[in-house]
Amino acid sequence: MNTFGTLFRLTTFGESHGPALGGVIDGMPPGITVDESFIRSELARRKPGQSDLTTARGEDDSVELLSGVFEGVTTGTPIGFIVRNKDHHSADYDNLAQVFRPSHADFTYFMKYGLRDHRGGGRTSARETVCRVVGGAMAKLALKTYGIEVFAYTSQVGEIALEHDYTAYNPALTETNAVRCPDAEKAEAMAALIRQVKADGDTIGGVVTGVIKGLPAGLGEPVFDKFHAHLGAAMLSINAAKGFEIGDGFAMATGRGSALNDLFTTDAQGHIATLTNHSGGVQGGLTNGEDVVFRVAFKPVATLLREQPTVDITGKPAIVKARGRHDPCVVPRAVPIVEAMAAMTALDFLLLQNRYKH
Amino acid sequence: MNTFGTLFRLTTFGESHGPALGGVIDGMPPGITVDESFIRSELARRKPGQSDLTTARGEDDSVELLSGVFEGVTTGTPIGFIVRNKDHHSADYDNLAQVFRPSHADFTYFMKYGLRDHRGGGRTSARETVCRVVGGAMAKLALKTYGIEVFAYTSQVGEIALEHDYTAYNPALTETNAVRCPDAEKAEAMAALIRQVKADGDTIGGVVTGVIKGLPAGLGEPVFDKFHAHLGAAMLSINAAKGFEIGDGFAMATGRGSALNDLFTTDAQGHIATLTNHSGGVQGGLTNGEDVVFRVAFKPVATLLREQPTVDITGKPAIVKARGRHDPCVVPRAVPIVEAMAAMTALDFLLLQNRYKH
Amino acid sequence: MNTFGTLFRLTTFGESHGPALGGVIDGMPPGITVDESFIRSELARRKPGQSDLTTARGEDDSVELLSGVFEGVTTGTPIGFIVRNKDHHSADYDNLAQVFRPSHADFTYFMKYGLRDHRGGGRTSARETVCRVVGGAMAKLALKTYGIEVFAYTSQVGEIALEHDYTAYNPALTETNAVRCPDAEKAEAMAALIRQVKADGDTIGGVVTGVIKGLPAGLGEPVFDKFHAHLGAAMLSINAAKGFEIGDGFAMATGRGSALNDLFTTDAQGHIATLTNHSGGVQGGLTNGEDVVFRVAFKPVATLLREQPTVDITGKPAIVKARGRHDPCVVPRAVPIVEAMAAMTALDFLLLQNRYKH
Amino acid sequence: MNTFGTLFRLTTFGESHGPALGGVIDGMPPGITVDESFIRSELARRKPGQSDLTTARGEDDSVELLSGVFEGVTTGTPIGFIVRNKDHHSADYDNLAQVFRPSHADFTYFMKYGLRDHRGGGRTSARETVCRVVGGAMAKLALKTYGIEVFAYTSQVGEIALEHDYTAYNPALTETNAVRCPDAEKAEAMAALIRQVKADGDTIGGVVTGVIKGLPAGLGEPVFDKFHAHLGAAMLSINAAKGFEIGDGFAMATGRGSALNDLFTTDAQGHIATLTNHSGGVQGGLTNGEDVVFRVAFKPVATLLREQPTVDITGKPAIVKARGRHDPCVVPRAVPIVEAMAAMTALDFLLLQNRYKH
Repeated sequence: MNTFGTLFRLTTFGESHGPALGGVIDGMPPGITVDESFIRSELARRKPGQSDLTTARGEDDSVELLSGVFEGVTTGTPIGFIVRNKDHHSADYDNLAQVFRPSHADFTYFMKYGLRDHRGGGRTSARETVCRVVGGAMAKLALKTYGIEVFAYTSQVGEIALEHDYTAYNPALTETNAVRCPDAEKAEAMAALIRQVKADGDTIGGVVTGVIKGLPAGLGEPVFDKFHAHLGAAMLSINAAKGFEIGDGFAMATGRGSALNDLFTTDAQGHIATLTNHSGGVQGGLTNGEDVVFRVAFKPVATLLREQPTVDITGKPAIVKARGRHDPCVVPRAVPIVEAMAAMTALDFLLLQNRYKH
Repeated sequence: MNTFGTLFRLTTFGESHGPALGGVIDGMPPGITVDESFIRSELARRKPGQSDLTTARGEDDSVELLSGVFEGVTTGTPIGFIVRNKDHHSADYDNLAQVFRPSHADFTYFMKYGLRDHRGGGRTSARETVCRVVGGAMAKLALKTYGIEVFAYTSQVGEIALEHDYTAYNPALTETNAVRCPDAEKAEAMAALIRQVKADGDTIGGVVTGVIKGLPAGLGEPVFDKFHAHLGAAMLSINAAKGFEIGDGFAMATGRGSALNDLFTTDAQGHIATLTNHSGGVQGGLTNGEDVVFRVAFKPVATLLREQPTVDITGKPAIVKARGRHDPCVVPRAVPIVEAMAAMTALDFLLLQNRYKH
Repeated sequence: MNTFGTLFRLTTFGESHGPALGGVIDGMPPGITVDESFIRSELARRKPGQSDLTTARGEDDSVELLSGVFEGVTTGTPIGFIVRNKDHHSADYDNLAQVFRPSHADFTYFMKYGLRDHRGGGRTSARETVCRVVGGAMAKLALKTYGIEVFAYTSQVGEIALEHDYTAYNPALTETNAVRCPDAEKAEAMAALIRQVKADGDTIGGVVTGVIKGLPAGLGEPVFDKFHAHLGAAMLSINAAKGFEIGDGFAMATGRGSALNDLFTTDAQGHIATLTNHSGGVQGGLTNGEDVVFRVAFKPVATLLREQPTVDITGKPAIVKARGRHDPCVVPRAVPIVEAMAAMTALDFLLLQNRYKH
Repeated sequence: MNTFGTLFRLTTFGESHGPALGGVIDGMPPGITVDESFIRSELARRKPGQSDLTTARGEDDSVELLSGVFEGVTTGTPIGFIVRNKDHHSADYDNLAQVFRPSHADFTYFMKYGLRDHRGGGRTSARETVCRVVGGAMAKLALKTYGIEVFAYTSQVGEIALEHDYTAYNPALTETNAVRCPDAEKAEAMAALIRQVKADGDTIGGVVTGVIKGLPAGLGEPVFDKFHAHLGAAMLSINAAKGFEIGDGFAMATGRGSALNDLFTTDAQGHIATLTNHSGGVQGGLTNGEDVVFRVAFKPVATLLREQPTVDITGKPAIVKARGRHDPCVVPRAVPIVEAMAAMTALDFLLLQNRYKH
């Protein structure tokens, strides 16, 4: 369904070309100061038209908070919000009403519901993620009061990948380039690749790396609701995500326990910590107090600005060529979405764990 | 928590060295014939001591069905079941009461609950998966009435990996070797590697590939409960799983849309199908009627039969060496667990989709 | 939390004096024609200022549907909606910021959250029910396609109570008077009583009777999610509701099984039916195909237009006298809310039961 | 489904004449000492055959705890348990396989599932409540660490009702008679009535009053998950329950706000309290720190030890006469069930509220 989370919940609605998208943030802790400029800046990171690497759709994505905040502070009651759609060119999509775009959700929605809103992809549009960013911004504000911080960055576009793990980079540099990669040189190469792909009327995939710092040990719920299982589901729910790994992930398939076990140590303050973090901050499905580190793989955007053969809704051969405004690479704009989903997941598990406080 | 699923739900309990493990299967459709020999055979696939590649713990894992079945047929009421523990050597674990095994859940459970049952890993033991196999066996019986089938196999152990995708192999061959790999030659190489690792007192990781055949198009729930998001969470909840990908997964990060889009075609019967299946049977989070294909990465087992430095529960340095019976590689025995979790996920989404039947 | 339902879900937000209230209807079946004039007429039944028996707050409660409807038909995606607040006199409530009104939620919200939005009662205001009416209207539209109909009426105000059960009255008469009582004579007496109470600066309680016709047998989920258990919770969640009974309810405490058992018969069409309906359409927690009949008790509104002693937020004695606009009797306007909650409950269980359709 | 609760959850299974009933208690706080003799004594209160007022079925209802307890203390992991069935006389029910007992769940289960386990009522038997008592006992043990206590008693059988509210009685007297009524004289009259009804081959209804003492203010979740809405659903899920009221309940329908408002006062310790408790400890759906008081109406047991006309499963007229062992009045044995459901509800809301502890 359209609700994410257990105690901190985001419920969303909205289609790409309808009057508005929006949602309800339920379970926001009371007494949190709502920094509206922060929410705006988070939305600005997601919005289209930021650079020549993204779609030109000029939404400014201003959010209206409708409840749950009184005199600038959260009250604990649900926060309703809407984001109006302003710049939709539904006519660009008229030609799509009768055909199924390859590797898009046109066909599957039609099979599920028996009908669909084809304008701009309707509910399947990545525009839906604007609501996730609002929910994530609120979660980040709450997490901050616990000293918890979330960040993500582009670690791969096509074959161009960062060579080191997150500890080698300064996350403050992520926002200094349009690709959202903290390594300036790699960022330039990635940008060049995206421009090339765009010129070809093609698209390309990539990887986003995410980090959560400051989580206490013990978050997550055995056995089915492990921390990284929920985090994985959160990431895999993002449009175009096709893979998720925690810590060393798939690379651990090739390794030995003697090399990959994270040995314990006791630091100067007497806290038990690990010497390495192959586990990515999660052991037995519960956080261990180390940084949670994960990676999300994104496929190339399915909508191409070139002709592709397909079938129409009666099954007859057809040709489709997108006229809308589409990103050649989803990854730079996926970075704030990854952060949003991680922040909401972390806050939800934190609130769950609080139940044991007597 | 300890419940998996929405309409088809498995709730489990039990520790490795307690009197019994068990669970409740709720939402099983009525009128399904319960083939108890099938359940036993599924349990036999998971049980320890099957070959020299696995732990020697000699549980025979017999399950007792306590409710929900009348005259051999499911009634729609919950199916309670227990699996008694018989062969536990708790004394093997006495030395673990005061120390935290590296990369195991000892530390995180202690931090979550403030205490733990250290015997055999308690609730964190992979023995917990026996209940998943029972739930999965029931789900498979129900799926069969819809013509849906689930299978999985070992596709990688350490660096030894199958070179082709699932369509190149005969799944019937999977059970012909102890590694559960449908390629006999590779299976032998994998087995040799596992034996070598075991001889070293070490462990090794691997990958399981899973396939679901026969699903109708349209399963999955936008936007947070996408089919592959739930499937991913299901897989990541399995002990030692560290990564999940659907279809071409992480490989899609390096590819272009023009190469990876799955073009539609209409088959001889007039059904719309795709010419390729890079998507892994899911588009926009909903099944598209093609085979669902996914891969799960498993880390090497954390428990080593050699000395490792660690800390005790007061934070002081200590040495730990496991005496219990442990697998050098979890992957062969993970195959039936992957199938079980996939079957339960598929049935759950199928029942959900039925809600629209008028 | 602020979500109602399992497969058909309403999530709401909004305070009495904030910018807007609204919600998300998730799980609405696709392909239902949305009759907006019907939604408006349902809202008109709930709105204040309908007669001299209700508060004068002049909201016209117009709803804006923001998603989930395409070309006049539901798409199966979530329906977001908002209802703007227009006529709030927050200044009327300034005197309430520092005191707790007796038998109101001022104190309990403050204890729960540590702060509260005191304007117009904030989230605790009965204005919140406007969103329930929107959700209920959608549910009624979906139920209609199954031939299921819901209605309710005022059966008691103070000591004035209808003497017969619902079969003795024509539900079409309910809307012919401001009290919403299908017995014209009783309605007049009830109205006179409400006017008297209002003149006294006092308030009075009452009872609403609800009926659901056309439900198939077998709805409801054993054992905790019985049909009438969920229906009861739905009703008890309405502001000022203090009691719920199904069928003969509390009167059954005094009766004998030989008199109260509903004997089965077979009608001319071969359908099994009952000769009486003391059970209220539910047996063993599942619907039996007879009309579902229930009653909901409402306490007198807590807000009095006269001085009452109380304490302030520091615990010191204070005097409170409401200046806002408040109903002397909540019952007439509760009728459409009772219908809305019943309709959503019925649709939810109907969709749940569909899961068994093969 | 067969799960109750959100953070503290009981999932149950089992039929009257199957091998065993049982369940899983998930979310039990860690570190609670498990007093097994207390659990046994709670089960003894529910068990049949306690006196000549109840069925003669001689189950001793011994429970086996299978997990979640280590060295006498809860570990936070799920507590699995089973209660074996020993004394079932399935043959007593052979005559019921082909007929529907009036006002029982035979017909509705058959309509829901298309088949049913008719032996002893199968899943619909009140024997299912044995699992609730185990869950409730655990909840009581956890509540005790918070200083919270739950009790209930029989306040009405047929027309014989207690004249005062719970403050007039000593709850310690409840267990001194078989009716579970703290007023010895009334208890005797009630017992005489039950014996008379039993002699007639008939059954009779009654009312149980429940009280929860020591709850902090602020428990409950606006707006749909109000404390008394969940409590009501919990009670209405008990077999034969037909009505629920909180505080003065239905009597408030006839009263005026000026008489029924609970005025605030500040006690000697500076705590804000109310002078009266018409609200029953809940205002605006949240607890206010006063005692929570509620009443549950039970219908007469449907199974009569005399002939009744009915229909068989093909719809043809038939005669049914129960041969099993059945209570003439469910109320005395319902008392511990009411307590169990109240305890689980209270603990669940308490754990939920803890989420805000920073």
